[in-house]
Amino acid sequence: MELKQLVLSKAKEAKEASILIGKASTERKNKILNRMAEYLKHGKDELIKANGVDVQRAQEKGLSKALIDRLTLTEKRIDEMIKGLEEVVSLPDPVGEITKMWLRPNGMLVGRMRVPIGVIGVIYEARPNVTVDVTGLCLKAGNAVVLRGGSEAINSNTALVKILKQALKDEGMHDGVVSFIDIPQREAVLEMIKLEGLIDLIIPRGGESLIRTVTENSRIPVLKHYKGVCHVFVDRDADLEMAQEICFNAKVQRPATCNAMETMLVDEAVAEVFLPAMLKRFEQAGVQLKGCSRTKKIYPNVMDVTEEDFYKEYLDLILNVRVVKDIDEAIEHITKYGSAHSDAIVTRDYNKAMKFLREVDSSAVFVNASTRLNDGYQFGLGAEIGISTDKIHARGPMGLEELTCTKFIVFGSGQLRQ
Amino acid sequence: MELKQLVLSKAKEAKEASILIGKASTERKNKILNRMAEYLKHGKDELIKANGVDVQRAQEKGLSKALIDRLTLTEKRIDEMIKGLEEVVSLPDPVGEITKMWLRPNGMLVGRMRVPIGVIGVIYEARPNVTVDVTGLCLKAGNAVVLRGGSEAINSNTALVKILKQALKDEGMHDGVVSFIDIPQREAVLEMIKLEGLIDLIIPRGGESLIRTVTENSRIPVLKHYKGVCHVFVDRDADLEMAQEICFNAKVQRPATCNAMETMLVDEAVAEVFLPAMLKRFEQAGVQLKGCSRTKKIYPNVMDVTEEDFYKEYLDLILNVRVVKDIDEAIEHITKYGSAHSDAIVTRDYNKAMKFLREVDSSAVFVNASTRLNDGYQFGLGAEIGISTDKIHARGPMGLEELTCTKFIVFGSGQLRQ
Repeated sequence: MELKQLVLSKAKEAKEASILIGKASTERKNKILNRMAEYLKHGKDELIKANGVDVQRAQEKGLSKALIDRLTLTEKRIDEMIKGLEEVVSLPDPVGEITKMWLRPNGMLVGRMRVPIGVIGVIYEARPNVTVDVTGLCLKAGNAVVLRGGSEAINSNTALVKILKQALKDEGMHDGVVSFIDIPQREAVLEMIKLEGLIDLIIPRGGESLIRTVTENSRIPVLKHYKGVCHVFVDRDADLEMAQEICFNAKVQRPATCNAMETMLVDEAVAEVFLPAMLKRFEQAGVQLKGCSRTKKIYPNVMDVTEEDFYKEYLDLILNVRVVKDIDEAIEHITKYGSAHSDAIVTRDYNKAMKFLREVDSSAVFVNASTRLNDGYQFGLGAEIGISTDKIHARGPMGLEELTCTKFIVFGSGQLRQ
Repeated sequence: MELKQLVLSKAKEAKEASILIGKASTERKNKILNRMAEYLKHGKDELIKANGVDVQRAQEKGLSKALIDRLTLTEKRIDEMIKGLEEVVSLPDPVGEITKMWLRPNGMLVGRMRVPIGVIGVIYEARPNVTVDVTGLCLKAGNAVVLRGGSEAINSNTALVKILKQALKDEGMHDGVVSFIDIPQREAVLEMIKLEGLIDLIIPRGGESLIRTVTENSRIPVLKHYKGVCHVFVDRDADLEMAQEICFNAKVQRPATCNAMETMLVDEAVAEVFLPAMLKRFEQAGVQLKGCSRTKKIYPNVMDVTEEDFYKEYLDLILNVRVVKDIDEAIEHITKYGSAHSDAIVTRDYNKAMKFLREVDSSAVFVNASTRLNDGYQFGLGAEIGISTDKIHARGPMGLEELTCTKFIVFGSGQLRQ
């Protein structure tokens, strides 16, 4: 009961604060963000000390090296958070933008104006930098946040939130704009995602099991990112040199990311010319190759690919290779096995480029470019809060605009309903 | 188990069909819609016969007159459905529209293209016309539907869906584009809303309890419409004649709708001039008036309004009247008691008009126009599938555009991630 009340009171604070930050001018929001950055600069020692407690506990608990690495705050990492806030200051404010306006026959002007969503709940793992990154983006878009970071980072997050709240207060803003659920128990999450009417949107950031739990139990709309099973299709009319560069970049440049290629599809008409050099280059880069029977005929030094493999997100230097009959078979493959994340065609043929763009239903579809470019910065949206694989509200990289909704506004002169 | 399998198989059919209808050209979709309209014309007798069975059962069960009225199909109502389909044919196809396109420093063109959502599940009450209306809109936007209408209309819906499916088949289209769950048990709904991955969006249309049940149990995103507690604020700088017309229209023109006014807020500076004639006109129109203490002083012949009343959606000829100090108190009232649906200010003051537009966070905010105009047709969106009170994806009237999402498309020339 106490836990329930605590979560509820945090959400209520955020709701109250959201009305004030929603009305704040861009200037005011930027001043708050700059002050947050300034206070983080002054608070480095304090932050590193608090973080030390978390790191020591994590080591004692024997948590994995990767987790401890993500948990650790260094001076450099704090500088990155500060830089992140400063970048958000420089981004245009989406709130108040009128995206369209039109005149109706009865003389009234109808338009759509961007407005904040309200209160955004963010549930994430033990990565203290997320606390600051998420706050910056949500605040700039006029929203309050209810943060719930991984329990292993509780001391770091408490120290960070203290600083962020001080900046809000010193700028005369309600400090519920950043609300933090400092309850380590998992039940706190389950309470939080029931607070329909107080929290308007939940963004879970973390592993698939966290996201599934949140989605299954939430009464609040959830924006989420499931896996990225991404493809590059090398068409018979591709510039094969370009195809090699794109495929190599898509697989090797950073294989652990969601927009890295997992399966390379090659048109049978060019497979014999394209595959040997390509696969040799992958081998030399340490990529483990799994090929279909036709791939093996051309390049025997690959493992057998299974149908299951085609569904896998390796996040590693492993690649499926399949020879396909034509673009239709490639699109069929992507539709069946892909996760609608990032898919590319390499071709010089106009009609096939347009067909691929139209028929592949992924969050980003590329002609002659690497799937690795599916990213808020690369697309010019500025910082991103994640990549949505949902089809509702936002799809693909989510920047400031995706943290707003629109309302209709009407300039009338006495119009009535007939 | 059988029920579960049946629902699952319908959703799978719809998913399969959605890929085909998603790729169909506008021409093809319009041909299908026209054929549906044509077959409905020929099927009138059959439809009225099937409907007769439903109506008779409803009468035997002693269902309410209002419900039986909504259930009944007449020749006129079938003509309206046909007209509805023909109107949808005439609306522009949102699919494929590129809403924005920009050039990145590395030379790649990035844009957003509208694409269908996929499979839309619609859960509604015993109103057979919804079966056709919803199908028309979803299909035009390239989506397949899974329909689940009220069990009292099962014979009518079965007959309607048979006709719609025949039209799909005769146009060479997968008839799973219109999938219909012909299982009267309520459990079918609970199964349906768990089918994440097959159904992409759920739209419940009906009473608040239906919508709450769906929202609480769905794993699929839900777009919904809760109540409309709408306000008109008569500012001290209003054209009082215009204010009277707008308030009268907002309350009386059709009180049972969600965008009708429930509470009239009047600036104290004009209350004594404005209220007597206004309230007398309401009385003469049969409106039951509930006033605050200041209202009563000016016009004693009103009941006492309670705080609870301010939260109510009357959907009837009942009106709360409150005298407020100024625009700030009006906005505060709307923020606290309103449902963020449709709210209006009447004023000649530029600054107050702009302030109201900015600070009132409702799906539609009006200056000098009636709240009754919050409607897809009135706003020029064409037919609407409902009015969303959500803040995610769509807010306010939902037309064809709201039945799509966007994907990013990239025209590259060999760009790689650095």
